[in-house]
Amino acid sequence: MEVYFDNAATTKIIPQVREIMLETMDVDYGNPSSVHLKGVDAEKYIKDSKKIISRELKCDPNEIVFTSGGTEANNLALTGIANAYRRSGNHIITTSIEHASVYNPVINLEEQGFRVTFLPVDSNGVISLEKLREELCDETILVSVMAVNNEIGTIEPIEEVAKIIKEYNEQNGKDIILHVDAVQAFGKMKIYPKRIGVNAMSMSGHKIHGPKGSGALFVDSKVKIKPILFGGGQEKGIRSGTENTTAIAGMGKAVELAYKNIDDNVGKMLSVKNALITGATKIEGITDNSGDAPHISSLSFEGVRSEVLLHALEDKGIYVSSGSACSSNHPAISGVLKAIELDSSLLDSTLRFSFCEFNTLEEVEYTLEVLRELLPTLRKFTRR
Amino acid sequence: MEVYFDNAATTKIIPQVREIMLETMDVDYGNPSSVHLKGVDAEKYIKDSKKIISRELKCDPNEIVFTSGGTEANNLALTGIANAYRRSGNHIITTSIEHASVYNPVINLEEQGFRVTFLPVDSNGVISLEKLREELCDETILVSVMAVNNEIGTIEPIEEVAKIIKEYNEQNGKDIILHVDAVQAFGKMKIYPKRIGVNAMSMSGHKIHGPKGSGALFVDSKVKIKPILFGGGQEKGIRSGTENTTAIAGMGKAVELAYKNIDDNVGKMLSVKNALITGATKIEGITDNSGDAPHISSLSFEGVRSEVLLHALEDKGIYVSSGSACSSNHPAISGVLKAIELDSSLLDSTLRFSFCEFNTLEEVEYTLEVLRELLPTLRKFTRR
Repeated sequence: MEVYFDNAATTKIIPQVREIMLETMDVDYGNPSSVHLKGVDAEKYIKDSKKIISRELKCDPNEIVFTSGGTEANNLALTGIANAYRRSGNHIITTSIEHASVYNPVINLEEQGFRVTFLPVDSNGVISLEKLREELCDETILVSVMAVNNEIGTIEPIEEVAKIIKEYNEQNGKDIILHVDAVQAFGKMKIYPKRIGVNAMSMSGHKIHGPKGSGALFVDSKVKIKPILFGGGQEKGIRSGTENTTAIAGMGKAVELAYKNIDDNVGKMLSVKNALITGATKIEGITDNSGDAPHISSLSFEGVRSEVLLHALEDKGIYVSSGSACSSNHPAISGVLKAIELDSSLLDSTLRFSFCEFNTLEEVEYTLEVLRELLPTLRKFTRR
Repeated sequence: MEVYFDNAATTKIIPQVREIMLETMDVDYGNPSSVHLKGVDAEKYIKDSKKIISRELKCDPNEIVFTSGGTEANNLALTGIANAYRRSGNHIITTSIEHASVYNPVINLEEQGFRVTFLPVDSNGVISLEKLREELCDETILVSVMAVNNEIGTIEPIEEVAKIIKEYNEQNGKDIILHVDAVQAFGKMKIYPKRIGVNAMSMSGHKIHGPKGSGALFVDSKVKIKPILFGGGQEKGIRSGTENTTAIAGMGKAVELAYKNIDDNVGKMLSVKNALITGATKIEGITDNSGDAPHISSLSFEGVRSEVLLHALEDKGIYVSSGSACSSNHPAISGVLKAIELDSSLLDSTLRFSFCEFNTLEEVEYTLEVLRELLPTLRKFTRR
């Protein structure tokens, strides 16, 4: 049996997405910047995808900028907004559990002279709103908080964050921008950024059965942003480079399908997730660190090293992830698990199981069986 | 008859490229950063593509960094190298006929305090080596010269440029880096950057029947370069973001095929190009601005506005380009045509016809027929 429980790392493309991607390759292969018919035909895919995404976000199609993925969307948001508002202040607030594609651009901005505050989180990975209130100051220009943590699935209180910033802005005549990395939330929950006061939001296609190399940034039309890639001036100058119509069309279709069936999909993922957690925590020495996101669970396995268990599961056809697996394969200990103050003996004994709507309860049953079988043996060998 | 003469803007994907892209979507869909088998299987496509490209460039596979396209490759090279060598000096030399994805990053660097020299070109679009020698100075850290101009097809004397820089470096104990934008040359001529002293070279996949969203930068292992996208540390930290295995695999296959048949392909393109130029220049009021690149021709049509002719040709199923068409559809007058001091009456009367190996002499015949038919009528209407 093959069980792919690494859907937070990437997902398999679905037939309808594949189909539209092929259309852009076989038929409408023009360069969207070409002024002739072939260009116009290609451009239509971009317009359609913007329409689909903006409909789901309840924003304007012109507020969607396509990027080469979630990482570029986060980089564009952080660096592009920080540079655009540089004159208003030099303080950025983010959290201690962001994805590397937020954390590292922020560190780069810090090296360029910005001051950065990292909000702490509680043992569930939820950020401190108290601390956010304390840290907002006259120099603050940008706050970046993820919607769903990629390692443990915590859902962050984005609406409350937005309210706090809105209040602060109103009381102090300020214009602090709120960016949300929604890569792990998009397609799995409904977020209407404009309605709740989120000014920029990053999305990815390949986490929801869309193509790799597809991503988008929602940027409120009132927000100033500077490009990070310069060139032909595509995407109204915010993102130069020949538009990857293949990825853009695929992402549009993936978003359409994800939101069309969102309640059903979330129900399926939750039942799989809950079955796994319920079953696993009945096994001795397994503890649960999972947040509320429907598709991510984090389990710690006392006395077993993550990598050993990961490969033992792999041998049985079960694919999971240690740490975030979105970072290139260096085996650093997860900053997120440290931030939630997980018992230090479990830091290197934790795996992420992440789901999509095609996973089944049979797969969970099989995984639980395998865990029951493997763990005693692995513990025998790995305990000192 | 449909005639696609806009291959310098983008090309149609060929079946073998399509096939390997589908493999990465249907079978090996894992995240290359995942440590399990699905990740390893996905990573193999990246390794294979690096092998193919490095074989054709005669460099090491580790010297290839994949990007989201030629624009990102140029941005990474210019900004990444300029920032890495900032301490050695602040002077950058480039040319007055670069693509927007070189020109605009350079302007951005200028705004950040770098001094930039733009080398002039002669009436054929060839840069002045004399001027290059004069401008190299103690503060120079980076020279960027395109291999083939995208609008008129001039082949620049890259080897001579490299020799001049090498000499200057040796005589002055300097380490000036040479970057070449080879987006329009790659796959159409053999360039061995390491052998001739080019330190970084940008490439694109979609100009040679590969996927949109695919590009690569060759960076000599001795060259320092800072990332422009920060995150999970993929591509040895030079380019973060989940690798777009679909685009990378497709680009590798496209490169393999382009170079396998390069002499044959170039022969076909040249015969098409020459037939068009020979036939067209026999028609009254058509003049030729083309350089030596096998796939690009630039023709000026006295007394006809480019856009009018472009759409008239489009009506007959012939797709060509005004200006570079790589820039988003703003109708600015081409800087390249100005730089070669084209008669000002022809600046807005010039079209680019660009070819691939699948174009035929029949298509040329048809195009010439259409031109002979259209021009008298169009001139009647557009002449004051």
